[in-house]
Order: sequence, then structure tokens, then C-alpha cells
Amino acid sequence: MVDSRRVPVGIVGASGYGGVQLVRLLIDHPDVEIVYMGGDSTAGKAFGDIYPHLGHAVSLKVEAVDPVAIQQRCEIVFLSVPNGLACQLAPQLVANGCKVLDLSADYRFSNLSTYTTWYGKERTDNETAASSVYGLPELYRERIAEAQLVGCPGCYPTASLLALSPLLKQGLIVPETAIIDAKSGTSGGGREAKIGMLLAEADNSIAAYNVARHRHTPEIEQICSELAGHEVTVQFTPHLIPMVRGILSTVYATLRDPGLVRDDLITIYRAFYRNSPWVRVCDGGIFPQTKWACGSNLCYIGIEVDTRTRRVIVMSAIDNLIKGQAGQAVQCMNLMMGWDETLGLPKLGFYP
Amino acid sequence: MVDSRRVPVGIVGASGYGGVQLVRLLIDHPDVEIVYMGGDSTAGKAFGDIYPHLGHAVSLKVEAVDPVAIQQRCEIVFLSVPNGLACQLAPQLVANGCKVLDLSADYRFSNLSTYTTWYGKERTDNETAASSVYGLPELYRERIAEAQLVGCPGCYPTASLLALSPLLKQGLIVPETAIIDAKSGTSGGGREAKIGMLLAEADNSIAAYNVARHRHTPEIEQICSELAGHEVTVQFTPHLIPMVRGILSTVYATLRDPGLVRDDLITIYRAFYRNSPWVRVCDGGIFPQTKWACGSNLCYIGIEVDTRTRRVIVMSAIDNLIKGQAGQAVQCMNLMMGWDETLGLPKLGFYP
Amino acid sequence: MVDSRRVPVGIVGASGYGGVQLVRLLIDHPDVEIVYMGGDSTAGKAFGDIYPHLGHAVSLKVEAVDPVAIQQRCEIVFLSVPNGLACQLAPQLVANGCKVLDLSADYRFSNLSTYTTWYGKERTDNETAASSVYGLPELYRERIAEAQLVGCPGCYPTASLLALSPLLKQGLIVPETAIIDAKSGTSGGGREAKIGMLLAEADNSIAAYNVARHRHTPEIEQICSELAGHEVTVQFTPHLIPMVRGILSTVYATLRDPGLVRDDLITIYRAFYRNSPWVRVCDGGIFPQTKWACGSNLCYIGIEVDTRTRRVIVMSAIDNLIKGQAGQAVQCMNLMMGWDETLGLPKLGFYP
Amino acid sequence: MVDSRRVPVGIVGASGYGGVQLVRLLIDHPDVEIVYMGGDSTAGKAFGDIYPHLGHAVSLKVEAVDPVAIQQRCEIVFLSVPNGLACQLAPQLVANGCKVLDLSADYRFSNLSTYTTWYGKERTDNETAASSVYGLPELYRERIAEAQLVGCPGCYPTASLLALSPLLKQGLIVPETAIIDAKSGTSGGGREAKIGMLLAEADNSIAAYNVARHRHTPEIEQICSELAGHEVTVQFTPHLIPMVRGILSTVYATLRDPGLVRDDLITIYRAFYRNSPWVRVCDGGIFPQTKWACGSNLCYIGIEVDTRTRRVIVMSAIDNLIKGQAGQAVQCMNLMMGWDETLGLPKLGFYP
Repeated sequence: MVDSRRVPVGIVGASGYGGVQLVRLLIDHPDVEIVYMGGDSTAGKAFGDIYPHLGHAVSLKVEAVDPVAIQQRCEIVFLSVPNGLACQLAPQLVANGCKVLDLSADYRFSNLSTYTTWYGKERTDNETAASSVYGLPELYRERIAEAQLVGCPGCYPTASLLALSPLLKQGLIVPETAIIDAKSGTSGGGREAKIGMLLAEADNSIAAYNVARHRHTPEIEQICSELAGHEVTVQFTPHLIPMVRGILSTVYATLRDPGLVRDDLITIYRAFYRNSPWVRVCDGGIFPQTKWACGSNLCYIGIEVDTRTRRVIVMSAIDNLIKGQAGQAVQCMNLMMGWDETLGLPKLGFYP
Repeated sequence: MVDSRRVPVGIVGASGYGGVQLVRLLIDHPDVEIVYMGGDSTAGKAFGDIYPHLGHAVSLKVEAVDPVAIQQRCEIVFLSVPNGLACQLAPQLVANGCKVLDLSADYRFSNLSTYTTWYGKERTDNETAASSVYGLPELYRERIAEAQLVGCPGCYPTASLLALSPLLKQGLIVPETAIIDAKSGTSGGGREAKIGMLLAEADNSIAAYNVARHRHTPEIEQICSELAGHEVTVQFTPHLIPMVRGILSTVYATLRDPGLVRDDLITIYRAFYRNSPWVRVCDGGIFPQTKWACGSNLCYIGIEVDTRTRRVIVMSAIDNLIKGQAGQAVQCMNLMMGWDETLGLPKLGFYP
Repeated sequence: MVDSRRVPVGIVGASGYGGVQLVRLLIDHPDVEIVYMGGDSTAGKAFGDIYPHLGHAVSLKVEAVDPVAIQQRCEIVFLSVPNGLACQLAPQLVANGCKVLDLSADYRFSNLSTYTTWYGKERTDNETAASSVYGLPELYRERIAEAQLVGCPGCYPTASLLALSPLLKQGLIVPETAIIDAKSGTSGGGREAKIGMLLAEADNSIAAYNVARHRHTPEIEQICSELAGHEVTVQFTPHLIPMVRGILSTVYATLRDPGLVRDDLITIYRAFYRNSPWVRVCDGGIFPQTKWACGSNLCYIGIEVDTRTRRVIVMSAIDNLIKGQAGQAVQCMNLMMGWDETLGLPKLGFYP
Repeated sequence: MVDSRRVPVGIVGASGYGGVQLVRLLIDHPDVEIVYMGGDSTAGKAFGDIYPHLGHAVSLKVEAVDPVAIQQRCEIVFLSVPNGLACQLAPQLVANGCKVLDLSADYRFSNLSTYTTWYGKERTDNETAASSVYGLPELYRERIAEAQLVGCPGCYPTASLLALSPLLKQGLIVPETAIIDAKSGTSGGGREAKIGMLLAEADNSIAAYNVARHRHTPEIEQICSELAGHEVTVQFTPHLIPMVRGILSTVYATLRDPGLVRDDLITIYRAFYRNSPWVRVCDGGIFPQTKWACGSNLCYIGIEVDTRTRRVIVMSAIDNLIKGQAGQAVQCMNLMMGWDETLGLPKLGFYP
């Protein structure tokens, strides 16, 4: 039975890693109740058949994806589906009054032609897309609070933009010198059976992939350009790391003012994130470990200045499935509902 | 009993990771025989007490370090000792006719004041140091062949220089744009009990360390400067990866000629390494995994050009304990003895 | 400032893995507040100096261990110190009215001579020891609720006893056939710098240790004997697994009644644990993964009967640092305080 | 061009883990040359397309599986194909004079009805099957030397039988008390895309699987029965360990003679394996780590006696892909060809 004091929420695509994180976080959230779980490939199954360890905590069955049923039962809907599917569901859900949080790439781009170029799909939902807000609360808190549709950022863009934003916003770096060398655990690849993601293949190894052509590049550039006030091109290289969770972005950029020292930048970052409870700027000489963030919605940022090269090096660490995905979506939901943005989210990593 | 057809070699510092790799490689080498193993902290122990799995293969005891005994029994000596100790042993060994391969930092620098600045130790062995050759065979094959003392490169410099050298030698990049984002397995930290290297700490985590101040920086810059023909400063950032072995260096640099495409660079690299049996340049679109190299003396190099940013991205993968340490020392020994540089070294990784 | 609605608690030994888990769990607990953190080796340090990622959440400094200060400020005290130290602190704390939860082995034994035999230390605190209760709530819920001093079980005994208890209590097996083959992540070894626990050593390897002589053996046997009503000897073999957290105990025993089938046993186990919210008995054919439990206070139990051999095989999976250590201590505290035993404890693992 | 001094060998199923190990080992073998690589799913591909890191070392293309072509070109054939396929190829190859080493389960059983019961496939090649020899050289060295067809053991049976054989052969234990608790790295599952084998799923977790019904059980029991001289039933439980390579079998059994001590058993084991160069019996108190064996064809055995329980505990560690699969096949080939059984096989693990 639905608890009438709790807001009814639905999850489309509950069986993937994004979905199971959402399930976990929303069960622990004090003000919502999961009333619908949808997924075409797993329709009809109990959630406990997919994740046996959650069978005792989730009694819902996965249902076929039916927008009419969703909008009748849910006030809030999370879309945790492959790119290109959310844009087939969101317009109707939005039109019928649902608040929608899309975890795919479909509603991240203000310019749909960028989406079509990088994702290879034509779009016709221009009006819906135009209404969506990019779900990075640290930059767009106010707009998210008023949005009905949020396009939640990718995991790499979340880590990378939190590292880069203060520098670009304050004009501290030469934008075109920005290089992002990012490292991710393999859960970022999703719960799909792929040979390259087998433990026997991916463990005890590291490699770059999609060098110079990863789809998160235009997403990062869109926000960087907005912050810089002009078109910015960045270098972005993702690497696969032999670990389950976590992203570290190591960002390099040349400082405009060679007189800036590390402590100046720490001060600037702390001011920039003063009202952002999920960002922690480390003391000088401390460089964040992804493990610190794992299990929490936190982003840890470390800063160094190399006076020999005039570069700033910024490292940001997040849990790719929490702050990089499901946790950030819940943070956005909190804002959309007028709740405290920390509500129901894990505040401390499960170290070690 | 010593096999008279085999050259007698000694290892000082046989109990660390570099030492145990040397032991393993030299046992399999057809033309040498280990006749001496030294180490002050483990003196008196059988090697099988330190590494029980090798007890059946190594009957030698570890002896106290006595230069007179070493030079009487050994034609070749590997020094696998902490920085600052090799320079106390090498002068006498060299003076008495031994061929010496130092795996520490002591004989890597042509300018000893650079060593003193970064390693904090005054040196008085200028003459010996001046006679040493930097043991990166792909660059200094001929000089190594004639050397009596070789300062073997660090693990990061090996991977990084093999990635950068063709670009610098041919003048293809703007040198000061070079950024090296390097990732290493934890065995690079040696066999010392440190909390940060515990599995419980280092597993499922990644972080940068010694940002803007790692001691391998001047070593890389020394060789880059020599290749470029002028003083070069590079950005070097090491990261600790939750895996045992392997280094990946991801190198970024701005191309002088924006017309160069990936295939041009692959051609240039293959020509540069034509006579280097231990370097493999991947086909276009293939990015090396450290696992490919693990267990072998190979370095795999992958190359990409980003036409949007005019940068070249070069990735090099090695086994940090083989090509990055003990294997490279054996490769140098082969050259010093006039043998084929592949002699006795593992040619294929133990994938997966 | 202390929140007057919250019970003041102290942690002695806050810098180890048990300590940092306690800190994390107690911060999230709604009815307590950490007011004291003690540790002689780290006295004077801010907790954020030891665990930088928690600096923003914990403002307390670690203090020298002073029983007088502790009992003045704390109503509840957790002792997370090495074996042999708790018994020097507990008598005074108990005498002065504190509720004490000891995570070491000191108060687990009803017979102190067993302790002395296995831990090599004479004891004089017989009276205090006699008042202590073994802190496994699933067996001793009522006694814990009335105790002032609880000796919290070891990680292996927790997993092993939850697997074995229903069989012994109901007389279903031949007790002396019980064999426990246990597997633990390396965090069970604590946050001490030991070469064998280095990632480079422990990763990608597995081995048994302390075969036939691990100190958790008498602890398991004490409870098994109590359940069986006569002296029971068990075989216990611990193994080190290349992972951070988690214990799996695989328990073998010969059934007295060859007619019992798997479903019978599942029914018996579910009845046995009907009022135990932290134990989940899997459906037939489902075998628990430690990952399911990691990050939560849950124990998952899977059961199989081999009709060919007349043996039952029971597998139990826990997070060694939560249900196997800090979480169980908090569960005991809840009972001692008359609170719901699930209060403030994580209910769902952070899968994957 | 084929080196006329080398024996031409073929590999059917070269693209799996067994295959790639065979390729690696046979390339390094001094007396054979790979002249054929077959595989229906990868036919037409260069081996370097499947394993880019081996492209420089293997110039052969994978060909469709054609028995006529194989027997014309190969003197020795390794079948590294799924269960149920080898029995369709072997009869013809054997009839045409090839020496055949099958790595699947097809030729491991002297009684084909056991095969049919456990593998669900009817067989008609009784005559061929009757001629096959079980390829565990430590037990059947002489018969392998004279065989034309060898059914190579499974990975678990190899480790388990090497631990159990001396006990059974000498009648030292009560056979029905034998319990094998085995732990394997995930490469044992092969190079197939399965969700449970993804790094994100399998890392940092451990679980048992196929409890009381794993197909390696009858294989182990067949040999145990032969050694004991009567029908023996054993308990066998496999576990999946978060590591790439390695198997540890922990074997429990009750001693017939309670007076036997550990040193007696070590002496017995060393005598039993006196002529087995690939088995190493550890000194008392030393328990083998799988890492010691990884990369080599060695099996390390550790022995303990628990005088409290009258049980012997034997631990055996192997590399599941070498001694447990491809290396053992090469060892058998050496015997079949009259060569030294150590020829061309790696003697030392690549520790750490």
C-alpha cells in the first residue's frame, strides 16, 4: 500500500546499474515511495529475480513500459534507459504533468543537432528538449528547481565539469589548453555482457578507449562554452580502470596569471562551491582517492599548481554510479521538489 | 657448481621486487649464471625463506654486501638497491672490472647537481657517474654496448620516453605542450609495508600522487631535452592503479604541423623503432592495454591524432617490473655483452 | 555542542578499520552522538588527518585514552583496540556505569582459561568477564538487552555461527563432522602495514592461513558446544581472498536424518531466524555472494543438501566490517538501549 | 615456412583462453611449430585481430575446422573446443594417425555413461573413447607416453587429485570423508560474455556455485575410485574468486591412523611426487598461494594435520590455465613424443 505522505515515483529501466542504484537510494529516501518499475526486457519478473539480494526489500514486479500507466501512478519518473529511448517516452510524460529525470544523453543538449551528430539519431521532440535543464546542481541549481524535465549529466562530465567550472567561470585559464584525462571503473559500462568487461580481461589492466571521439566530449564542451562565454574545445580521454566504481578526472590547463598559487585556487574553489554540500575541496597537498567518494554522493576535488609549467592540475573523484548517475538524479529530484538537496542521500563513503 | 660456459652474475638487493624479477629472468637466461645474491637486511637467509615458491629453483643464500667478494666472483653485477646506495658500491666494482647495471636513480643523470636537487644527496663519484650510460636501449643502443656502467631508467621514464621520443627527435611537437598522465600498478612502490599500498586501501581506488613533484620528472626532461636539442620542461603526473603490474603513459602534445594525420605518425613511429624488437606500434584505432605487456619485455604503443585540437595522443604500455625495470636491465646486459638484445627475455605476455 | 536528545558515545581506537566503520555508522545513527574518540598512537590528531575524506564530517580530535574522561563524557563506549587492551579498560568503565561494547576478543569467552590458552595472556578481571555477554544478537538477543558489557564476536565466528546454529540447536547434524571453510577479504587483517597484505602480494592470489590453529576456533566451538549441549570440536580454516570486504563461510556437516531435503532445511532456517531482521535465507538453488551483503548489516544464508553424501552445505555471506564487526556492535548497542535492533544500520548493500 | 626440425601441431579452438595459452606455450616450445589454427566462429580472421598483442608473433589465420586439412598438416592436434565437439573430431583424427590432446571433458571418462549422465549427450565413439588416457601425468605418466589420444583433466580435478592422490593411494584416509573446497579465478569460466563474470559483478565478491552438482565431481570420483580400489564419493564445492588466474583446492579428510603427524605426510607426499618435476611439496607450516604458481606449470602442495580433529588438510595451488589446462596438455604432449616432460614449459611463476 502506498504511504500517502510519500510522493509516488517510478523507474523505467530498473534492472541496470543505474536502475538498481536508484532503487537503493529511493528506498532509503524519506519522502518518496517507488510505486512502479518498468523494463521491457525484464517485464514480468520480480525484482528479486534480477537481484536476489534485494528480493526482501522490493516487492514490486517489473512491468512492461506503458506511459499511460506510469503517468497515472507516478508523480516523478526516472528514465534509466539506453540513449534514444528516453526521447520517445519523455514528451508524453511531461505533457501529462510528470516530473521527469532522464539519466540518458537524450536531454543533455541544448542544441539537438549536436546530439544527432554524436549519437546518430534524428530527433523530433524539439519543444520538449528545449524545456529540459542540464542536471548539474552545482551549476544550475535554480533552473533545476523550476524544471519539469532534467537531463542528468554523464558520469565523466560530472567529474570533469566540477573540476573545470571554477577555472572557466572566473576566466583563470586559457580554455583551449584544457586536457581531461579521465579514469573510470568498469561499472560505467553498464550491466551488459561484453567480453572486454569480463573480470578476466579487465582486471589487472588499464587502457584508454574512444580516444578523441568519446560521446561525453560535446557534453563537456557545451557547458564549458557556456561558462567561458565562447566556444571551447577540450581534449577528453577516458580510461578503463580495474575497479568496480569510481571516476577520477585529472584536468590540466594553463593559467592566464602566472602569479596564482595553489592556495589562491583552493580559496577560489571553496568560494565557488560554498553552497554546494556535495563538493569537498581538499587541503593543499591532498589529492583525492575515488574510494573516499564511493558509496556517497560526494565529489572530492584536489588542486595543484605547477609553477615550472604554469599549469593548474585539478583532480576530482566521484562514485560514478552515485554522484555520476543515480545520486545526482536524486539530488536533482530533491531540488525539483523544493526539498533540501542532501535529503536521503548517503553522506559518507563506505571506506575502505 | 658454476657452469663454465655461463657468465657469472651477481645481484645486490635480491629480495625486493626488482631483485626477484632479476632472479627469475636470469635463471631463464641461457648465457649467465647467478653466483651471488647480496642484501644486508636479509643476509644469511636462504632465498627460499624470502620467496618460498622459489626455494626449489634457487639454492643460494643471501650474503652480506661485500664489494671484494662480489668483484672476485662476478663478471656482471646488478644493483637493485635503494637510491643513494648504488653510488657507494659502483665506483669500486667498476674500478675492478665488473660490468655494473644499476636499477636505482644514482647513475641516470649526466648532471649530478640535478640528482642532488631531486634526491637530496651530495655525490662525490663524479668520474664514475660521468662514465655511465642511460640504459634505454631504444635510444642509446650503441653507447650501452660500450658501457661498463649503465644507469637503468625508471619505470615511468621508460614508458614515457618510448612514447615521446619519436615526436621530439623529429621535431613534430611543440615540446612545452607535452603532458604525461601516467598510471602504474602498485608493485612500482616496491615490497615495503606501507599502509597506502595495502590491498584494503589501494584496491578499488585510484588517485594521483606527487603531483608536479615526482622524481621521475627530471629524468624524463633530461632525455627530452637531449632529443629536442634544447631545454624541455614536461608535465608529469603519476597515478596509482588498483593492479599489481603495468604502466600506461598517456602523452598529450600539440603538433607543429596540423596536416599530420594518424597514419603519418604510425609510419614515423614504426620507422623510428624499426630495429627495436621490444617495441610494437599498434595499428590505427588500437589502444594498448597494460595486460598485453605483462610478463614480457615488450612496450606497446598506440597513437591517435585529434584533428579538432591539433594534438597527438600517444599511449605506451609496459610491464613496470620487466621492461620498466629488471627486463630492461637484462636487455642492457645483453647489449653490453655483445649478445642479441632479446636473449633470454620473455617475448609474449601471459594474457589474460 | 552535544545534542541533548542524543546519547553520548565514545570510541576507543577510532583510527583502525573497526573504528572508522563505527564512526561512519554512529554519525548516521539517529539517537547517538560521538563525543569522544580515543587512541594512544594517534592522540592529538584531528580525525581528518587520519582519514582526509571524513574531515568535513568529524570535527573531534583523537585524544589520549583516559578512562576517567571517557566515563565522565560517555554513556556508551566502544572499545576497538587490540586484544589484551580492552580488559585493562573495561572493568573501570563498567564499574562507573558505562555500557561497554568490546570489539576485541577479550570478553568473548565464558572461560578465561580458554582465552589465556589461545591468546597467551593471563587475566585478572574474572568478575567483569563473568558479567559479559557474547554479542551475537541472533542467539543472545535477550541477554544482550540486559547486559552492561558485551563481547562482540569475531568476523569469522559471526558468519560461521549464523550458518551452523540452526543445525546444532535442532540436533540435525553430527556435530563433530562440521567443517568450516571460510574466506575473508583483506580488511579483516586491519589497517596495519604488513607485507603480505600489500596489494602487490595479496591481489590475484588466494591462500589459507593459520590452518588448524586460528584463534577464532575456540570462539566458534564455545558457542557450538552451548548449542549442542556438549563439547563440540570443529574444523575451521580461514583463507585470504583478493578483495577488500566480505566473508563467506562454507560449512559442511553430515545430516543425522538422511531423509531431510533442502526445502526442509530452508523452512527450518527461516523459522529459526524469523525474528532476526538481519538474516536472510535464500531460496533453494540461490547461493549468496559476499557482494550482496557489502555495505549492509545483513547476513545472507544459502543452503544445499547433497543426497549423494548425506551432507548439508551452508554458505553465509556478510560484510566483515559491518555485520562482522562495527555493525554488529551497533546492533548490540541498540538492544542494550532498548531500541529497535535495526536502528541506524544500513539495510541494503551498495551493489555492484 | 615450416621448420623441418620442428613437429607440426594444430590447435582447434585457438581463440579461447585455453587456445591463447596453447599458442603462447607452443610458440616458446623448442620442438614444435604451430601450423594450423582452427575455429568456426572466428574463421578467416588473423589471430592478431582476436588478440592484437599477439599479432606480431602469430602470422597464421584462423581457418574453418576441416579434419582432412588438419590431419594432412598436423602430427599433433590440440582440441580446445566446448564439451561435445571434440568427440566429433577426434575419431577421424586418431584414425588418420594424429596424436590428439583433447582439453574438453569428452575423453576423460572410462565409462561413457557417466559422461552422458553429467554432460547430457549420447556418445557413439566408444572405441575411440576406450583408447583414450586420462592426461594427469603425475598418475598416468607411462600410459600417456603410449597413448595416441589423451583426455586432459579439468582444472579443478587437476588441483584436487594432486592433493588427494597420495592419501588415497596409500590408504591413509577414510575415503568418504573427503571434502574438496575449491576456489578458482574467473578465467576458468572461459572467454564468453556472461554477466556474472563481468568485473563489476565478480570483483570484490566471492560465492559458491553448482554446489553438489558440478560436472567435475564425477571426474574426480573416477580417479579417486581407481586409486582407492573401490567406489568413492567425494564432496566437491567450487567457488568463484575475484582474480583472473589460479585455483586453490582445500581438501579435508579423516586420517585412518591418528598417530600420523604432519612431517610423516610431507615425507609421504615427497616420495609420491619424487619423479614429478611439476609438483612441489611445501615445508611444514607453509601454505601455498596461487600466485606462486601463476604463469608456471607448477603445482604447490601444503599439508597440515589437525590432531584435535584427526583430519588432514591439504592445499594445492595451480595456475588454472597452465597446469590446469594448456600447460598440462603440453606436458602430456611431451610425454607422448618421448620428450622430457618439462620441455618448453615455464618453470617459475611471474610473482608478484
